[in-house]
Amino acid sequence: MDQAIIAADTAWILAAFTAVSLMVPGLALFYGGMVSVRSTLNMVMMTFGGFAVVGVLWIIFGYSAVLGNSLGGLGLLGDPLEYIGLGQLLEAPAEPALPPALVAGFQLLFAGITVALISGAFADRLKFGAWMIFAGIWATLVYFPVAHWVFAFDSADGSVVGGWIANKLAAVDFAGGTAVHINAGIAALAVILVLGKRRTFPNAPRPHSVPLTILGAGILFFGWFGFNGGSALAANNNASVVILNTVAAACAGICAWLVVEKFREGHATTLGAASGLIAALVAITPACGAVSPMGALIVGAAAGALCCFAISFKFKLGYDDALDVVGIHLVGGILGTLLVGLLAVPEAPSGAQGLFYGGGLELLGKQSVAVAAVVAYSFIVTFIIAKGIDLAMGLRVNPETEYEGLDVAVHGETAYVMDSVSMTSSTKHQPDAVSVAAESMTTKAATAVESSS
Amino acid sequence: MDQAIIAADTAWILAAFTAVSLMVPGLALFYGGMVSVRSTLNMVMMTFGGFAVVGVLWIIFGYSAVLGNSLGGLGLLGDPLEYIGLGQLLEAPAEPALPPALVAGFQLLFAGITVALISGAFADRLKFGAWMIFAGIWATLVYFPVAHWVFAFDSADGSVVGGWIANKLAAVDFAGGTAVHINAGIAALAVILVLGKRRTFPNAPRPHSVPLTILGAGILFFGWFGFNGGSALAANNNASVVILNTVAAACAGICAWLVVEKFREGHATTLGAASGLIAALVAITPACGAVSPMGALIVGAAAGALCCFAISFKFKLGYDDALDVVGIHLVGGILGTLLVGLLAVPEAPSGAQGLFYGGGLELLGKQSVAVAAVVAYSFIVTFIIAKGIDLAMGLRVNPETEYEGLDVAVHGETAYVMDSVSMTSSTKHQPDAVSVAAESMTTKAATAVESSS
Amino acid sequence: MDQAIIAADTAWILAAFTAVSLMVPGLALFYGGMVSVRSTLNMVMMTFGGFAVVGVLWIIFGYSAVLGNSLGGLGLLGDPLEYIGLGQLLEAPAEPALPPALVAGFQLLFAGITVALISGAFADRLKFGAWMIFAGIWATLVYFPVAHWVFAFDSADGSVVGGWIANKLAAVDFAGGTAVHINAGIAALAVILVLGKRRTFPNAPRPHSVPLTILGAGILFFGWFGFNGGSALAANNNASVVILNTVAAACAGICAWLVVEKFREGHATTLGAASGLIAALVAITPACGAVSPMGALIVGAAAGALCCFAISFKFKLGYDDALDVVGIHLVGGILGTLLVGLLAVPEAPSGAQGLFYGGGLELLGKQSVAVAAVVAYSFIVTFIIAKGIDLAMGLRVNPETEYEGLDVAVHGETAYVMDSVSMTSSTKHQPDAVSVAAESMTTKAATAVESSS
Repeated sequence: MDQAIIAADTAWILAAFTAVSLMVPGLALFYGGMVSVRSTLNMVMMTFGGFAVVGVLWIIFGYSAVLGNSLGGLGLLGDPLEYIGLGQLLEAPAEPALPPALVAGFQLLFAGITVALISGAFADRLKFGAWMIFAGIWATLVYFPVAHWVFAFDSADGSVVGGWIANKLAAVDFAGGTAVHINAGIAALAVILVLGKRRTFPNAPRPHSVPLTILGAGILFFGWFGFNGGSALAANNNASVVILNTVAAACAGICAWLVVEKFREGHATTLGAASGLIAALVAITPACGAVSPMGALIVGAAAGALCCFAISFKFKLGYDDALDVVGIHLVGGILGTLLVGLLAVPEAPSGAQGLFYGGGLELLGKQSVAVAAVVAYSFIVTFIIAKGIDLAMGLRVNPETEYEGLDVAVHGETAYVMDSVSMTSSTKHQPDAVSVAAESMTTKAATAVESSS
Repeated sequence: MDQAIIAADTAWILAAFTAVSLMVPGLALFYGGMVSVRSTLNMVMMTFGGFAVVGVLWIIFGYSAVLGNSLGGLGLLGDPLEYIGLGQLLEAPAEPALPPALVAGFQLLFAGITVALISGAFADRLKFGAWMIFAGIWATLVYFPVAHWVFAFDSADGSVVGGWIANKLAAVDFAGGTAVHINAGIAALAVILVLGKRRTFPNAPRPHSVPLTILGAGILFFGWFGFNGGSALAANNNASVVILNTVAAACAGICAWLVVEKFREGHATTLGAASGLIAALVAITPACGAVSPMGALIVGAAAGALCCFAISFKFKLGYDDALDVVGIHLVGGILGTLLVGLLAVPEAPSGAQGLFYGGGLELLGKQSVAVAAVVAYSFIVTFIIAKGIDLAMGLRVNPETEYEGLDVAVHGETAYVMDSVSMTSSTKHQPDAVSVAAESMTTKAATAVESSS
Repeated sequence: MDQAIIAADTAWILAAFTAVSLMVPGLALFYGGMVSVRSTLNMVMMTFGGFAVVGVLWIIFGYSAVLGNSLGGLGLLGDPLEYIGLGQLLEAPAEPALPPALVAGFQLLFAGITVALISGAFADRLKFGAWMIFAGIWATLVYFPVAHWVFAFDSADGSVVGGWIANKLAAVDFAGGTAVHINAGIAALAVILVLGKRRTFPNAPRPHSVPLTILGAGILFFGWFGFNGGSALAANNNASVVILNTVAAACAGICAWLVVEKFREGHATTLGAASGLIAALVAITPACGAVSPMGALIVGAAAGALCCFAISFKFKLGYDDALDVVGIHLVGGILGTLLVGLLAVPEAPSGAQGLFYGGGLELLGKQSVAVAAVVAYSFIVTFIIAKGIDLAMGLRVNPETEYEGLDVAVHGETAYVMDSVSMTSSTKHQPDAVSVAAESMTTKAATAVESSS
């Protein structure tokens, strides 16, 4: 392929990588804002810590296990030793092609973010050490194989064999509805069945900072264009359609959730807007290359409406999916993957044909098999991992830590130290109020200094 | 045009689109931080909700109304049925060209952000339902036509007719000084004349979180490079000059506002830095392709200084432009659009010649006509829309809701739940303080749990 | 070079520029979150104000001083008059090349961010006016020369002479370990020796908002990919390797700091994760083009572990490096620059050979000379500048201002106005709690209104 086209593709994937990297703090704050002020930092740390561990493993053997030549040609796992340490990726490919180092970096982010996504279900009760160990083991035994199934395509000349879902089954998953969202969502469910409910369930603390959560959701919205658009691996019409479909679904998801919520509960909430946004983005992830813009509106609206119901399943069924990883990522991921089977239009980048566009049931069948395989494998292996860690070291913090919140007990920190925010709500144009407040602050500070000495 | 050049242009516009998408949460937090803690989420929701509604309409008929072939060749409105649903944009263009799906996505963000901008004037008193309806009607009747006037260029072969400002008048508006900022600013003025002042006006609550506002302003700064630079629709010298001019103006705007403020009021404030930044970015938006870097410093400094005065007009004239949409977007937008008529240098991308560079009064005349047309049309139609909604359902929340703040009453939420942030300001290196605080937290939590059972 | 390749490179550098621009608010919040709530805005203002001043100077003569033809061919300073005002950069280069306007914009951000970095050491005690003057003088006398040394490469035909470190010494500094991080770190040390300790040192207020700091750190992580990856000045394999190495180091840095901290102090903290992340990013900055991905893990881990110790030097040696600019940027920058001498592999983009890969001591010697030169020059000149400003106008705020915090006294603002955040931590599914809180809020608001009238 033309060297200059490759350079353009590289430019976009570099930018897409960069955008996706912001999803790490984005996710940390999305989750951190939704918990109480006493476990905020623990949520942040699960994202950053899990991401960091998986990133290190990725360099050592993860890339190789996902994108290496399939062991035995089975399509189940890449050869984890083939690219160990990634030293082979330093030099540019002999033939013009997207630099493998770039693909390695882009997919590192996918791996790290998928693991971090799971942690939202564990708020307020999981040991941090257990989480870090879980993150490493889960990436190795669950994410790397499943990502190989979905993201490793056979090479054109057949010399490199990829994963079975991408090649043998040929299900459509543009950017990771199965490997990322269904995988994370079902894994969350498996762990919380071992971990148990918070002591206060079904009561839960209200989000301590909705602005933090909306910021996180907004950053995820931004990063998602890198995530989905970058999955085109090219700067072309396909990537363009993907981002148009992604933003269309996002808008429809917000609207749908707010409408359902308003009718069910009387209020259109900010948390609902954020949730509808994320649900729609999850559902469009597998479908963003397969549907038309109108189809994308339908996917987004369906996800917003369905997940708005799905997050209440936990109260009926009694599992404590604290920040709705199951209700949004599992349900939204399954919905989007199956809707491809209905709504795919052949003119779209994926070139697949859904039931509603004359394609019959074949595609829907393939999508269902992909969903079932990921759900079954991820649930079983994750459950075993969680049980194993629970037996070995215990998954759960002690009750005192759970009562007081994890931030102080586990991390030795509090999210905020705000005792001086006492300035009264004076008006912008009353300088007097400012000086009064300043005076009171001075007095207070002086007192504090005196009393501390 | 060369396919590889197109691919490079596509790479940049994909990245620019992604950057602009972050302006949605950026604007939400910029506005959310400036209001009291009791209406924070309502501001956030006006941005997200308005954006979402407009995004859905854009997919259905908005793109077509803006970029479709001009109805009757008049240059007043694109044919809203031409690209209905955007199914035609799935396939790559026959001739090498920027993918229309990408232009559609990029311009969707412009539409959604313009509508959201208006909401800053309405803090603390507008019904959320009325806002959502206003957003949809205003986009349809005001934004889509005006964006057609400014952003729809005739095709090279004349087969597609665009808007009258872009083609017949040929005023220079590189990235939306008229269609975005003047349009939003004058619309805000029209609505607040119908909506009325807050009960406490001219007193207003102080910004509840300046960090949130500075974060929002910083994100807007970031997104603006995608907004202005992406408007070059190419990855070339033009886009490069545009981003250089944009950052130059931003720096000058901050400096100018802080200097004026320091001399007038004795303090250089953070809110002033954020305001100077945004004012400069607004003013450079139409001018970023027309002036030299020194010209950009002048545009930015002029906007910072002028808007620092303009935001106090509301106290003299008695309109409650809560977050200074009129004072910054209308005034800054007019300033920048007119300065093009003075400062345009022919070597710059727009290739226009201003009064100070030997171009005479012609360009200044065109710029003035563009300003006047957008101001007149947008003001009149917006006023009628606002009156209509006010008669049909009422624009204004009831007095109780206004007193207590909109978050709880309208959205059933509060922005923060912070009652546990009581840890005293101990020092980083006094572990005792941490354990003391931890103890007190434990006691408190235990008490809370007991008393709740 | 091929016009289309240049367009692709332009696309990436435009995107990289955009990403780096977000580091401005990122740094402001990273620093702002770490100080007490009474000096938060002052930290934010040092970043924004310093950045703005330097940006204006950059347009006028800074670009010229850094990237202009070396005065007298000495490699010490570019001709500050050559490109004065940057009007020459409006037109596209005659030969296909990255647009100079883009390089000018990209490097403007480097200059502004380097100056802002320094301010972290000055928390709670530096006059804002003195800071603004320092920023302008320091950029002129220290940053512009040193950046010329490191970033100005001789033109291929020898007609333009660049800086001595880049060309004569030929030390390896891919993205600014010397000119940016060592430079900022040692300058911080020089100033704080003049400025003195805070009155409460070695006690310091705890970070008032760790979420703000983690957000800032996360934004810096994001921007760093533009910073390092954009320094390749091309969308190719080099940029790809650079971003892979950068993310690898970041992950290793987080892990290393958390492990060291856990063993030394018993807790893995969020502030530690943020610090390990930044330390690793600093250290990989000079090295990102010179090492393998495994080497990047080593650089990141070494930086995370070493800087975790280095930040306590200030307590032993008694200098008040408030937010660890010395401990992280100086120490991390030196570490990374020297590790290039050990770990450089010839297959990497820089093509250098370190001691451990058969290159002997030559490279390590060059790296040491570059470090020593920047440390010596920057320390001496900065110390003189700081002394001069201190004599002329005083660097330090008065004791009352230091006690009460700088926000109210200097900027006339407080970061937060939160008196209404009194809603108790009720649960998501107890609508009663919401209405109770709403009622109490209404009452309170009504009382407030009455008593204010």
